[in-house]
Amino acid sequence: MANKEFSFKLLKTKGKMRAGTMTTPHGVVQTPIFMPVGTVGSVKALDSADVKNTQAHIILGNTYHLYLRPGMQTMQEMGGLHAFMQWDKPILTDSGGFQVLSLGDAIAHKQDGSSQKSGPSVKISDDGVEFRSHLDGSKHTFTPEKSIQIQREIGSDIMMAFDEALPDSKPHEYAVDSLAKTNRWATACYEYWEKHDRRSVYGTYQSLFGIIQGGLFEDLRREAVEHIVSLDFDGVALGGETVGYDLDGTRRVMEWIEPLMPKEKPRYAMGMGMNPIDLVDGVKMGFDMFDCVAPARLARNGSLYVGSLEIENGEPVFQSEFKNGRMSIGAAAYTTDSGLIQEGCDCETCKAGYTRGYLRHLYKTKELSYFRLATQHNLRFMIRLTEQLRSYILEQ
Amino acid sequence: MANKEFSFKLLKTKGKMRAGTMTTPHGVVQTPIFMPVGTVGSVKALDSADVKNTQAHIILGNTYHLYLRPGMQTMQEMGGLHAFMQWDKPILTDSGGFQVLSLGDAIAHKQDGSSQKSGPSVKISDDGVEFRSHLDGSKHTFTPEKSIQIQREIGSDIMMAFDEALPDSKPHEYAVDSLAKTNRWATACYEYWEKHDRRSVYGTYQSLFGIIQGGLFEDLRREAVEHIVSLDFDGVALGGETVGYDLDGTRRVMEWIEPLMPKEKPRYAMGMGMNPIDLVDGVKMGFDMFDCVAPARLARNGSLYVGSLEIENGEPVFQSEFKNGRMSIGAAAYTTDSGLIQEGCDCETCKAGYTRGYLRHLYKTKELSYFRLATQHNLRFMIRLTEQLRSYILEQ
Repeated sequence: MANKEFSFKLLKTKGKMRAGTMTTPHGVVQTPIFMPVGTVGSVKALDSADVKNTQAHIILGNTYHLYLRPGMQTMQEMGGLHAFMQWDKPILTDSGGFQVLSLGDAIAHKQDGSSQKSGPSVKISDDGVEFRSHLDGSKHTFTPEKSIQIQREIGSDIMMAFDEALPDSKPHEYAVDSLAKTNRWATACYEYWEKHDRRSVYGTYQSLFGIIQGGLFEDLRREAVEHIVSLDFDGVALGGETVGYDLDGTRRVMEWIEPLMPKEKPRYAMGMGMNPIDLVDGVKMGFDMFDCVAPARLARNGSLYVGSLEIENGEPVFQSEFKNGRMSIGAAAYTTDSGLIQEGCDCETCKAGYTRGYLRHLYKTKELSYFRLATQHNLRFMIRLTEQLRSYILEQ
Repeated sequence: MANKEFSFKLLKTKGKMRAGTMTTPHGVVQTPIFMPVGTVGSVKALDSADVKNTQAHIILGNTYHLYLRPGMQTMQEMGGLHAFMQWDKPILTDSGGFQVLSLGDAIAHKQDGSSQKSGPSVKISDDGVEFRSHLDGSKHTFTPEKSIQIQREIGSDIMMAFDEALPDSKPHEYAVDSLAKTNRWATACYEYWEKHDRRSVYGTYQSLFGIIQGGLFEDLRREAVEHIVSLDFDGVALGGETVGYDLDGTRRVMEWIEPLMPKEKPRYAMGMGMNPIDLVDGVKMGFDMFDCVAPARLARNGSLYVGSLEIENGEPVFQSEFKNGRMSIGAAAYTTDSGLIQEGCDCETCKAGYTRGYLRHLYKTKELSYFRLATQHNLRFMIRLTEQLRSYILEQ
């Protein structure tokens, strides 16, 4: 199973929209794709069989969280993350950089729009980031090499280069230094990856994606693309506080960098995918891969996606009777609603026939089963949306 | 589906042990059986498909909880509990009496061994029980007729007569009065049931079981059996604070009443089934049906059943390397344990291959998926145990 190397094949384009096929040691990912987030070795409220039922092609693991719990000794003794969580499809790991900073004080806004937590202090140096665990306050240091080494021990299919996720509030002067660091770290990650023959500690091939930072500064974003593209990463990612959080900013940045990105490599918009329309926009801006914790978190908080992809004037458009495509299942109006969350939805929750009235009851009574039923709807919804976008592109 | 009436067929006995088949409008229940508890329209942490996967034949609904939420207007508009929760197999409802008293102050010990909650005040009169909702303090009254009416609106397959669950601490004098009330209420329930042609508001046949109270007083328990047996209930249940909580007391009471109970009717030990051995004991004492919230609650709290039914000197005996047949999944010893909770277990969690190490990780990180994976193991364990007891009896 783990013999195949990494490849990406661009099958079709329409305008900037792209449909492709990405092959990893643990299977094929058809793009565009939405990737559920399994922070600490579990997509919240779901088990791995549930995640498979959402028809996810690939999931994320968070390096920072997994490094702290269960820790890399346990991870290795359990044979890596795939074996640990009984997930035999592709896994992408982030570098830990975003969590180190967002669970510290550096980033004012979390990407899903939730309010800032005060966290442990973080020290950023030229070599890496020193931080305290948000769990027990213990002190740790991530460097580019350390981040890749941890990802090698997790055994993901796709690793991300270690970067400084630049807060939007920082001035140009700070951003220049930050980007210089991120670019140096990208080179360091690349070299460490090559040194280990691009393989995990379990011997499987791991691809590495570089990350384009630079905040909301056009000159820096252009400089960032240039550096990342100069290294032969397997894929190119767009990072930063803005991406997926400030959609206008995200679009602006994407417009700057898209023409400079290689066509033959997968493009990942990190943290983008809170609302259905974000996926449509991201695909229209020329990106292939998306992830966000928000669909699952919104589900747990009573917001369920409803809507559909329509074609208007030859363009795919997301339409919904609800603002942002989200219904509030806790509303009294649904008390005796015997309809499904969405008629025709092929998620396990809707297929099983659970009604809005029943789901509202489970939500109001805080039954644990609610969280799973809601999560599997929202995740399947987002994945189906990327499938529909792909079909649309392929049919052109 | 809902045309069949109720019947019970005793297939085989060995000593006091019995194997039977109970037919209800929503299907057949093979006894002995353990019944998962779906308090408020959901077996905690599971959806109805999960419950089916535990191979449950029948589940419980709690009249008190369902009466408060979603309430009987919603229940009826949604077509009754089967339709509401997408569960098409048999449902048994309690009378509400136990919750009215246990969520009030009357019962010092909850049946699962958890500590007493202070609750709303409860007034017991000759006609019924006045209580305040544990949710919002609103005032309600349950009478025998009201309890049956609510159960008719829930649409269960098996209803329980309204009773006063007698606290063990009460003196004989109080117990005499209490039992007189319970017996009068049993008659009132019977008459109300007959008056409505034994049918739910949805037209389905509902059976009614009488409940034997009388605390730890032999004279009262004998008097209670005599009264309950004098009415032509479809089944006979053993209730009271003792049952399933104080196992020595339970055995004593069972010894008194078992010879006086009809052979041709199902016998239900209410609230019994916290530990695997309780089910073995209950079956050996001549009972057919068991329920308890504890297996699910223990699972959520990190206690997972391990052990097996063995035959020693021709008798079924539960054996386990763990005290009470429960392992503590949070123990550090399981951190890198790549074994299943129990080798050969046919629950969905063990079949999916989730290891003790992974489950410990989910438990320690408080991942929501843990609660479901643990619950479906413990429930399947208890149901399988009753299946094995049944096979043993049938093979004699």
